[in-house]
Amino acid sequence: MRIAIDAMGGDFAPEEVVKGSVVAAKEHNVGIILVGPKDRIENELAKYDHSGLDIDIVHTDEYLAEGEHPAYALRKKRNASILVATKLVKEGKAAAVLGAGPTGGVVAAALQVLGTIGGIARPVIGGAFLGFAPQTIMFDLGGNVDCRPDQLLDFAVVGTVYAQKWLNIPNPTVALLSNGAEEGKGNEVLRESYTLFKKSGLNFIGYVEGYDIPSGKANVVICDGLVGNVVVKFCEALGETICHWLQEKLSGKLPREDIEEVVGGLLRATNAAEVAGGGPFWAVNGVVCKAHGRSKWQEIAGAIAQAKLAVEVDLVGSLKSELELARSKLNIPNPPD
Amino acid sequence: MRIAIDAMGGDFAPEEVVKGSVVAAKEHNVGIILVGPKDRIENELAKYDHSGLDIDIVHTDEYLAEGEHPAYALRKKRNASILVATKLVKEGKAAAVLGAGPTGGVVAAALQVLGTIGGIARPVIGGAFLGFAPQTIMFDLGGNVDCRPDQLLDFAVVGTVYAQKWLNIPNPTVALLSNGAEEGKGNEVLRESYTLFKKSGLNFIGYVEGYDIPSGKANVVICDGLVGNVVVKFCEALGETICHWLQEKLSGKLPREDIEEVVGGLLRATNAAEVAGGGPFWAVNGVVCKAHGRSKWQEIAGAIAQAKLAVEVDLVGSLKSELELARSKLNIPNPPD
Repeated sequence: MRIAIDAMGGDFAPEEVVKGSVVAAKEHNVGIILVGPKDRIENELAKYDHSGLDIDIVHTDEYLAEGEHPAYALRKKRNASILVATKLVKEGKAAAVLGAGPTGGVVAAALQVLGTIGGIARPVIGGAFLGFAPQTIMFDLGGNVDCRPDQLLDFAVVGTVYAQKWLNIPNPTVALLSNGAEEGKGNEVLRESYTLFKKSGLNFIGYVEGYDIPSGKANVVICDGLVGNVVVKFCEALGETICHWLQEKLSGKLPREDIEEVVGGLLRATNAAEVAGGGPFWAVNGVVCKAHGRSKWQEIAGAIAQAKLAVEVDLVGSLKSELELARSKLNIPNPPD
Repeated sequence: MRIAIDAMGGDFAPEEVVKGSVVAAKEHNVGIILVGPKDRIENELAKYDHSGLDIDIVHTDEYLAEGEHPAYALRKKRNASILVATKLVKEGKAAAVLGAGPTGGVVAAALQVLGTIGGIARPVIGGAFLGFAPQTIMFDLGGNVDCRPDQLLDFAVVGTVYAQKWLNIPNPTVALLSNGAEEGKGNEVLRESYTLFKKSGLNFIGYVEGYDIPSGKANVVICDGLVGNVVVKFCEALGETICHWLQEKLSGKLPREDIEEVVGGLLRATNAAEVAGGGPFWAVNGVVCKAHGRSKWQEIAGAIAQAKLAVEVDLVGSLKSELELARSKLNIPNPPD
């Protein structure tokens, strides 16, 4: 298996991206295609012993620059490294693509080159976002606002496959995020979705409230991208605010290392971006993975291992068949990819 | 000025309610009408010196019992103390009503007896909910889901009057809660609201994100009741979860009193119910105030002082005229009360 890497994506590209790729090729037994300016990549490769490893270079001079609007820039830079790398998946030359550049660029390349599956309009973004509830994932955290009930159902299928394949939860519980636990609560879309979810064959347990997220009442929490975005960003900011407050409160009362341990632990537990910023994009017709922009070689190597896993568990195929299954139970037509 | 009190509302009724009323009559120079079983109220009154105070009793044997569905019970108990007390406002015998019983009961009585102003369908609930951002209030946190842009505008007017009259902020900033700061973000209702708010004459500063709530970027944050409810309940639960975690982390490292101070402070700062559970209901055609169910006499006396203030600042009148003003600027018709 070979994985295409945008060698120019991320805050520490190409240095850390190339180093992480060499490590992954060695440790995770995977082929690598580095996409970017040949001379710069070769310079970096020369620093490491990569004899016997399956590492190739596909040359391109173009890549997204810092501060550019990613989707807009990609319309002009037709040979941008993230586009070229994604095309390798489309052409069957790579099994997956990994980018550590701006999310907008990775998503735009994925949409332009690979498209989505099952009639889903935009990639679905989600995952665990609260360290206190590691078995709870939430979808959508991305750009899917104004969702119809059947779209929320799509997210629920995505979440179920995620929980099964990624968190090894065999029969994950699914819930709709609402303003109360009783069936009559929620807005119009939620109430319609409630009826739909009950018939879907998913392990649907009804509504959960904001109160139920930290306690992990459901494995898969479904909401539209507006609610999800607000909750995750609020969580992150509240975590940071509490950390500042704690630092002040504990200062002088505890040794500095102890304060740092507490504050650091809380920051990690509430920092959604750390978690949701990485991993595969869901509902794309191919395995497209994102690493954090600030990834060093360890995170790049880890993200490559994740991409390999996504191919091995047949993420895209599983998702397609689960979507078809859930829809056929509800007599919802399955649109072509 | 006389204030009608549901003597049988709250976890410690009638004992603490009567005591708090006597204290308020003395300290805040206000008349009190206690509504409930005459003998039980007289028994309580006999414990205190109330000579020279304007304290009256209106007898009724009926009141909401623990565990009853409030709105449903009120349909049968036509002489329930909260209904009788609210009617005193309608009849002009009291300037305001205070209840410490279930929120559902106070709201149902308010709606049945007094109705709402300006065509607003349900009482609007909101206020400061995060101790870290005491100058930030959020509306709606209640049952107003599926809101149209003009309803969100109503909440913004309510919030502006609240910030002016209650928090003494002369020109409060108003923002819509969205999934991004740029004008193109948000769902359909938010984008329409953005246009409407810009023309409203309110001090509108655009969208804020979940990230901006704890930092207090806007004074008045507007969202529908679903989003507001999810955020506030999530905030409360996350606060509790972090408190448990901190207690464990700090145990043995700090003296018990220090741990309790930190944990207690954090719990108060994140516990929305403490804050939003009290104060006046907005958009009701009369001053209706709620005290926490677990109020002791101090809180009852404080809530009576708040009710008095609401009458003095002409809460209902101010709100009516501000609603008319904002609507006239936008050529939105002003429905009758």
